Amino acid sequence: MPSYKAPLEDVGFLLNDVFQIDRYDNLPGFSDASADVRDAILNEAAKLSEQVLQPLNRVGDKEGCTRHDDGRVTTPTGFKEAYKQVSEGGWLGLSAPEEFGGQGLPSTLSHTVAEFLTSANMAFSMYHGLTMGATAALLVHGRPEQKAIFIPKMVTGEWTGTMNLTEPQCGTDLGLLRTKAIKQADGSYKITGTKIFISAGEHDLSENIIHLVLARIEGAPAGIKGVSLFVVPKILVNADGSLGGRNGVTCGAIEHKMGIHGNATCVMNYDDATGWLIGEENKGMQGMFVMMNEARLGVAVQGLAQSEVAYQNAVIYAQERLQGRSLTGAKATDKPADPIIVHPDIRRTLLTIRAFNEAARAMVVWTALKGDVAHRSEDPKERQAADDHMGLMTPVLKGVLTDVGFANAVSAQQVWGGHGYIADNGMEQFVRDARIAMIYEGANGIQALDLVGRKLPRDGGRAAMAFFAEVAAFAKEHGGDEAMQPFVAPLSRALGDLQKATTWLMMNAMAQPDNAGAGATDYMKLFGLVGFAYMWAKMIKVTQDKIAQSGATPYLTSKLTTGRFFMERMLPETALHLTRIESGCATIMELPAEAF
Amino acid sequence: MPSYKAPLEDVGFLLNDVFQIDRYDNLPGFSDASADVRDAILNEAAKLSEQVLQPLNRVGDKEGCTRHDDGRVTTPTGFKEAYKQVSEGGWLGLSAPEEFGGQGLPSTLSHTVAEFLTSANMAFSMYHGLTMGATAALLVHGRPEQKAIFIPKMVTGEWTGTMNLTEPQCGTDLGLLRTKAIKQADGSYKITGTKIFISAGEHDLSENIIHLVLARIEGAPAGIKGVSLFVVPKILVNADGSLGGRNGVTCGAIEHKMGIHGNATCVMNYDDATGWLIGEENKGMQGMFVMMNEARLGVAVQGLAQSEVAYQNAVIYAQERLQGRSLTGAKATDKPADPIIVHPDIRRTLLTIRAFNEAARAMVVWTALKGDVAHRSEDPKERQAADDHMGLMTPVLKGVLTDVGFANAVSAQQVWGGHGYIADNGMEQFVRDARIAMIYEGANGIQALDLVGRKLPRDGGRAAMAFFAEVAAFAKEHGGDEAMQPFVAPLSRALGDLQKATTWLMMNAMAQPDNAGAGATDYMKLFGLVGFAYMWAKMIKVTQDKIAQSGATPYLTSKLTTGRFFMERMLPETALHLTRIESGCATIMELPAEAF
Repeated sequence: MPSYKAPLEDVGFLLNDVFQIDRYDNLPGFSDASADVRDAILNEAAKLSEQVLQPLNRVGDKEGCTRHDDGRVTTPTGFKEAYKQVSEGGWLGLSAPEEFGGQGLPSTLSHTVAEFLTSANMAFSMYHGLTMGATAALLVHGRPEQKAIFIPKMVTGEWTGTMNLTEPQCGTDLGLLRTKAIKQADGSYKITGTKIFISAGEHDLSENIIHLVLARIEGAPAGIKGVSLFVVPKILVNADGSLGGRNGVTCGAIEHKMGIHGNATCVMNYDDATGWLIGEENKGMQGMFVMMNEARLGVAVQGLAQSEVAYQNAVIYAQERLQGRSLTGAKATDKPADPIIVHPDIRRTLLTIRAFNEAARAMVVWTALKGDVAHRSEDPKERQAADDHMGLMTPVLKGVLTDVGFANAVSAQQVWGGHGYIADNGMEQFVRDARIAMIYEGANGIQALDLVGRKLPRDGGRAAMAFFAEVAAFAKEHGGDEAMQPFVAPLSRALGDLQKATTWLMMNAMAQPDNAGAGATDYMKLFGLVGFAYMWAKMIKVTQDKIAQSGATPYLTSKLTTGRFFMERMLPETALHLTRIESGCATIMELPAEAF
Repeated sequence: MPSYKAPLEDVGFLLNDVFQIDRYDNLPGFSDASADVRDAILNEAAKLSEQVLQPLNRVGDKEGCTRHDDGRVTTPTGFKEAYKQVSEGGWLGLSAPEEFGGQGLPSTLSHTVAEFLTSANMAFSMYHGLTMGATAALLVHGRPEQKAIFIPKMVTGEWTGTMNLTEPQCGTDLGLLRTKAIKQADGSYKITGTKIFISAGEHDLSENIIHLVLARIEGAPAGIKGVSLFVVPKILVNADGSLGGRNGVTCGAIEHKMGIHGNATCVMNYDDATGWLIGEENKGMQGMFVMMNEARLGVAVQGLAQSEVAYQNAVIYAQERLQGRSLTGAKATDKPADPIIVHPDIRRTLLTIRAFNEAARAMVVWTALKGDVAHRSEDPKERQAADDHMGLMTPVLKGVLTDVGFANAVSAQQVWGGHGYIADNGMEQFVRDARIAMIYEGANGIQALDLVGRKLPRDGGRAAMAFFAEVAAFAKEHGGDEAMQPFVAPLSRALGDLQKATTWLMMNAMAQPDNAGAGATDYMKLFGLVGFAYMWAKMIKVTQDKIAQSGATPYLTSKLTTGRFFMERMLPETALHLTRIESGCATIMELPAEAF
């Protein structure tokens, strides 16, 4: 059975030392999150994850969710009690506004907590994650009375939320959606249609489920410009907030999936269901984008979270499994064989995962912090810069963290050899669960297109230029520092590759957009690598300073080694991506469709 | 539901045009495999795979195998009938010696047939694959009476075979094995112990199961030098070949695994089971190596096979799924959206898989042909050169084809978006099934170590030098051919990277063996890429000649494009592997085990 320990030391290092979150005390909510408060919260989240959620991870996978003939869906043994505990602990409201019952703390903190919960039990934590996404959309685009009715109950977890976008004929291309909305005399709408792949669409954890649903109002324009967003509660809510009758929305089936069995993925049938418009008619994508951006960062964290828990269990196995001898002579001479962690190839595997985990976590904290600045700062320029960063980094984080997170779960499983293929050992569940994160909330190919086609050119490339400038400034500032050379030099080279790739795309994608499409995934990966390298360089600088000030610790020493491993073995991949991008689209577009 | 079509045109091109198998007519069995005979056999194998085995693939996954309280194991619905059909069709005996009831045809042909069967149904085809592996070991190391009793029944499939190596405490490190063998007065042995992960260890497909079992004879030396190989039939066989009583071997449990549910993976309990020695006492590894080499090539084919079938189904989806519009303007203007194959990123994904499949298939045919030469040629020098090739390429094929085959199954699943995550669509099964091939028959890290630690230095590097010389000679011969330039130039560059890496290992691994371990996986991947590049260059030359002679066909035109894609986008990865290898082991070995 796998285990999990929340990476508290690493999180503390990032919040306190690398990003010095206390500097943001002027932002609302930050001064409430003093170091002591943060520690207490993170320790509590760790305990909850390790002791309550992690033990339910295998149970959830084995039992899955069950749809009964009457349309009810029940969750695996123990989920209900755990859900109650998480909700009552106030974990959903950590960074929700105080006026709706939240604690108003930085979202940086809630994203960190999300990593812990998700490492412990990804399928379970999605029930809360989706609720927080739906809450975010309501907060931005909901009318005052909608906010008043729904948000307080969602912040306590008494009610959960969902996102209803996909239909059988429409996934990425939401302009194709057919679900209909017909306006009623009282201002409400009757919603009819079928949605598929609805995570947490029906379950037994909460007394109500608040569906956010994309639909097309009768007479609306075709395509994406005729799509509106509605709130459709499973059980109707009276004006005083009390529950009324059952709405016309039911779960028609649950999907049998590769993983995340503990989360009910539903086909949802809307049959004259009563819904209320959120935001303006035909502007449904605006509200959906709020939810999607929130969700994309959440999904990126899933990639990291699965990579982290898979790493931890691979390490335990590698330290305990005795098999063969070190190439340089027996190490555990008192034992029949050496633990396999003596083997360079096992260490290479582990360090590859670890170097990603620590850089990815830093990028999440960095970006979440920008998110807080974007939402909470009073300085419009600061807000804009932070928002630029969020827009640019969200597809990179979603695409890269989930691609690499999955690959890492596979590598960690490999460390276990044949035992990694056996279900009860849990390693293969990490692989199956992590796999979905590359697909939902926009498949990673779409993230890459969002990056090159939308986020990169936006505002004349302002966001990307700011990022390049920040990295270049760091390299310049520390270029003369000899101890930083093994980190700054590769960082600068990698930034050079990214800038060349950016220039190539600017020169070649205008005339032939397929050049952007052909290079998109490589560009996203290249961007991610430079982001990681910058995080590593920043972390190493802080590590060196701390060691100089107060001496080495095992944690700090490992940081130095892991950072060097990243620079030597992982970052050189940037050149490969640049080569591929520069090879363009000609060969790729050559074959007729039927020749494949 | 997924479908499958055997790649007959590609196989024909390889056998007839690229490797010109008719040139080997002087070898025993080859003249019987004339072009007509080959076509008839391959067409028949295709039909069997497409119509009988493929439809059982989902069934096998869903139902899995069942162990009953009495220790019997039953296979999924339809497996028994299909097994009978495959056995009675003589497919197991295709390349078995005629004296034992086989057809004595080239193993090149049976490896090709194995690809078809495995694409159609990997879990099912393992029952035959293991039998063929056990047969191979008996053929080489069995005593005449053992051969006479067991092989004819295994060639017809009336009896199946297994390999029993792994025990709970011993996987890679077979020296740790504990299963005991006690010699009896009649020359037989009593075998006692527990073996785990035994594929096809118990089932209802055949009337007997012939277990080949590694065990330690009482008083044998410790470690690998005290391991002997035994044949232990499930049901004892009388001297006249008729079946006797039940032997002391039972299935204690079947494993619940990530994939290949249709194949029973058993815990086998040996309790004073009667067995007979194969080969000499304490020389068990010799027989096991025959089986393992046979099996490793078979597992390599599994990687290719899953990649091929996953590719085919990704193509079908990409051609049919309408979503979004081409970046260069709508293509299917009569439809609500374009098929997603218009998108460069989808094409990039598909071409990446395809360029691998076609090169990997060529490498399998090339290596299988060398296997035939090694076993059948009368010229000792030719035999030795072919055997060198087999020894060198087997770990490369096993490691690279299964690593990339799995990655390709994941990419193919990604093309399906959310629908790829749903079990009944079958794409995720390819991923789960393909995953095991990276692990069994020696995890891929072990293949890499076998390559750098054993196969590369063996006989002063003779095998590798011969391979480098062959590739260099090809590059020299065609270096002046302008049409070949886009293929020969990258091939030479990649060969240069491989030679540099080889030199680096020779210079640095002697003094510090961990340098070999730290670079092993990258070296294996680099080797595989150069092998693929050589295959592509050879195929392109033949393609160009054929086009010049008799004009282009869609198949030949696609070859040119796919080959160029490989050279432009995939082969440049060699430089990255070289960089990693040259970074050595220092950073990797730095951390103490407990710091991970």
